[in-house]
Amino acid sequence: MVSLFLDVLAGKKARSPAPIWMMRQAGRYLPEYREVRAKAGSFLGLCGNPELAAEVTLQPIRRFDFDAAIIFSDILTVVMALGHPVTFVEGPKLAPLEPVSEAVAVLERDPVRWRTVLAPAYDALALARSGLAQDKALIGFAGAPWTLATYMAGGGNDEQKAARLWAYRDPDSFDALIALLVDCVSQHLIGQFEAGAQAVQIFDSWAGGLPPVLFDRYVVKPTAAIVEKVRAAVPEAPIIGFPRGSSLEGLLEYAEATGVSGLSVDPAIDLGLLAATDGPVLQGNLDPLALIAGGAALRDGVEAILKATRHVPFIFNLGHGILPTTPIDHVDELVKLVRGPR
Amino acid sequence: MVSLFLDVLAGKKARSPAPIWMMRQAGRYLPEYREVRAKAGSFLGLCGNPELAAEVTLQPIRRFDFDAAIIFSDILTVVMALGHPVTFVEGPKLAPLEPVSEAVAVLERDPVRWRTVLAPAYDALALARSGLAQDKALIGFAGAPWTLATYMAGGGNDEQKAARLWAYRDPDSFDALIALLVDCVSQHLIGQFEAGAQAVQIFDSWAGGLPPVLFDRYVVKPTAAIVEKVRAAVPEAPIIGFPRGSSLEGLLEYAEATGVSGLSVDPAIDLGLLAATDGPVLQGNLDPLALIAGGAALRDGVEAILKATRHVPFIFNLGHGILPTTPIDHVDELVKLVRGPR
Repeated sequence: MVSLFLDVLAGKKARSPAPIWMMRQAGRYLPEYREVRAKAGSFLGLCGNPELAAEVTLQPIRRFDFDAAIIFSDILTVVMALGHPVTFVEGPKLAPLEPVSEAVAVLERDPVRWRTVLAPAYDALALARSGLAQDKALIGFAGAPWTLATYMAGGGNDEQKAARLWAYRDPDSFDALIALLVDCVSQHLIGQFEAGAQAVQIFDSWAGGLPPVLFDRYVVKPTAAIVEKVRAAVPEAPIIGFPRGSSLEGLLEYAEATGVSGLSVDPAIDLGLLAATDGPVLQGNLDPLALIAGGAALRDGVEAILKATRHVPFIFNLGHGILPTTPIDHVDELVKLVRGPR
Repeated sequence: MVSLFLDVLAGKKARSPAPIWMMRQAGRYLPEYREVRAKAGSFLGLCGNPELAAEVTLQPIRRFDFDAAIIFSDILTVVMALGHPVTFVEGPKLAPLEPVSEAVAVLERDPVRWRTVLAPAYDALALARSGLAQDKALIGFAGAPWTLATYMAGGGNDEQKAARLWAYRDPDSFDALIALLVDCVSQHLIGQFEAGAQAVQIFDSWAGGLPPVLFDRYVVKPTAAIVEKVRAAVPEAPIIGFPRGSSLEGLLEYAEATGVSGLSVDPAIDLGLLAATDGPVLQGNLDPLALIAGGAALRDGVEAILKATRHVPFIFNLGHGILPTTPIDHVDELVKLVRGPR
């Protein structure tokens, strides 16, 4: 393998400098992204256009020479492929599933719709791969079943409450929804590997704050099932898990039970404690606000992360997606801080 | 002492049944509360009327025979007492502090305003105490400096981002704001003890998700300073800390460094792990959604909590405030589950 990112994710060894990429690196903080986004007309229009999606996927590599490109898409494409209505009005709005007892039947898959909705991501992956240098890795992704279910259970700020309440009130139908999503997410990840992704990340953005019993049942176990299904089709598939907001204990349980290759870590976690355990490859975890702030906050944050991980295989990233107001010159500085003088 | 709550909070021993109260127990889920709230005209009108505030403070004790009453007030009264504008439009809206460098000077205290804004809470405490049976404890409270600062730094959903960004960009002025709030919160807690509170709870509702360095600097250290100041005026004052969303490691650090008497724990924490440490008295941590759901979710949740804490001094509570849609008969059932047949 010639990719620094894939080498480190395979656990080969600690590498200096660490490979670097950023969650949501193809995004609104980049003027060249905003230009393509305007051309596409809408966020979903951009997701559905393979040429434009591939173009914005490659933009941050050209500008910052990151070590990996992540395909431009959205975790909710899987939900749309299931026939559940999704619109974006400053963020996604979904019709809540009602009535609960019929929810899963409503979502029965339509193979044509499934293919139609998800094909642009596969096409974009193939286009992006052909436009990437060999030493740059291409990452696919999907939302985890729990996080997708929080959106499907009800929109707005109460989305996680609605999903938790459903899980408490009617665990059988909620289990059925999660099982359906395990299957769908696995298929979508396999489809992305087949289209050219060399690693995938599973985003469980709303895994935080869950009581341990629910965390085990709806975050850990479904992710373990996905990893198993994906690796049955793609042996030794490199998979990064990101159960955002998890506790240290939760992360260790997740890593052990799922067998993910890498663990993406949010800014609240003490990386030094994780690095001292015999867990998977770590990725993270600079606070996106420290990147906006720049200056001493940025330098101190980067230094602490590099120090905590200097003896373990490590991929530098933010602890959450890069924010639209991030100054581009701070990203330039970050890359220099991580790589040192070249 | 004749109060089960105060006995247990003093760490006397594990008691069965555990004392029980609920965060936000004087609230919209009670028809008798909604009636008084309508009479008061507004939420702030209710906070500012000692007779009505004392009345709603006592309502849940009458209905459920809880072991402690918590004074009806709001954490933002301290901010209002500092002269910072606060309005409530489905939740508090605050003018963000601008410009940052002048922020703290703007908040210089006006002793008359301070007393005028906070006096209703002291009067309500005295009234509530006189209306409470001797075996029921009366709890005062305040918001912690970090949480108050997140509201003051900017309203809306981005409130925590604004505070974190301020802390990264201009740590000196943010430190000054936190120091001012340490002083104010301490004064307000001492005032509540003098008015009749027998214990206080410090709500750090937005302590979750903070990078460890910020958690230590803005949650742990300010709370330690408050505990010290309060106990200088009220020796051995019983103080419960609630840094919501903290990790287990964060809670242990917080407990050790602050010397709080009790630790209120949110639903994401495994109480069994905490109970196995030599920490403070524990309080919590039923998921408010499990209380809404009722049935098996409620019974299993209560059973797991009582089992995990059966060998340690423990106060039963929710892991977060009771929600307006909570059925009252579920609260009745919860009290029976915790107390067993009488």
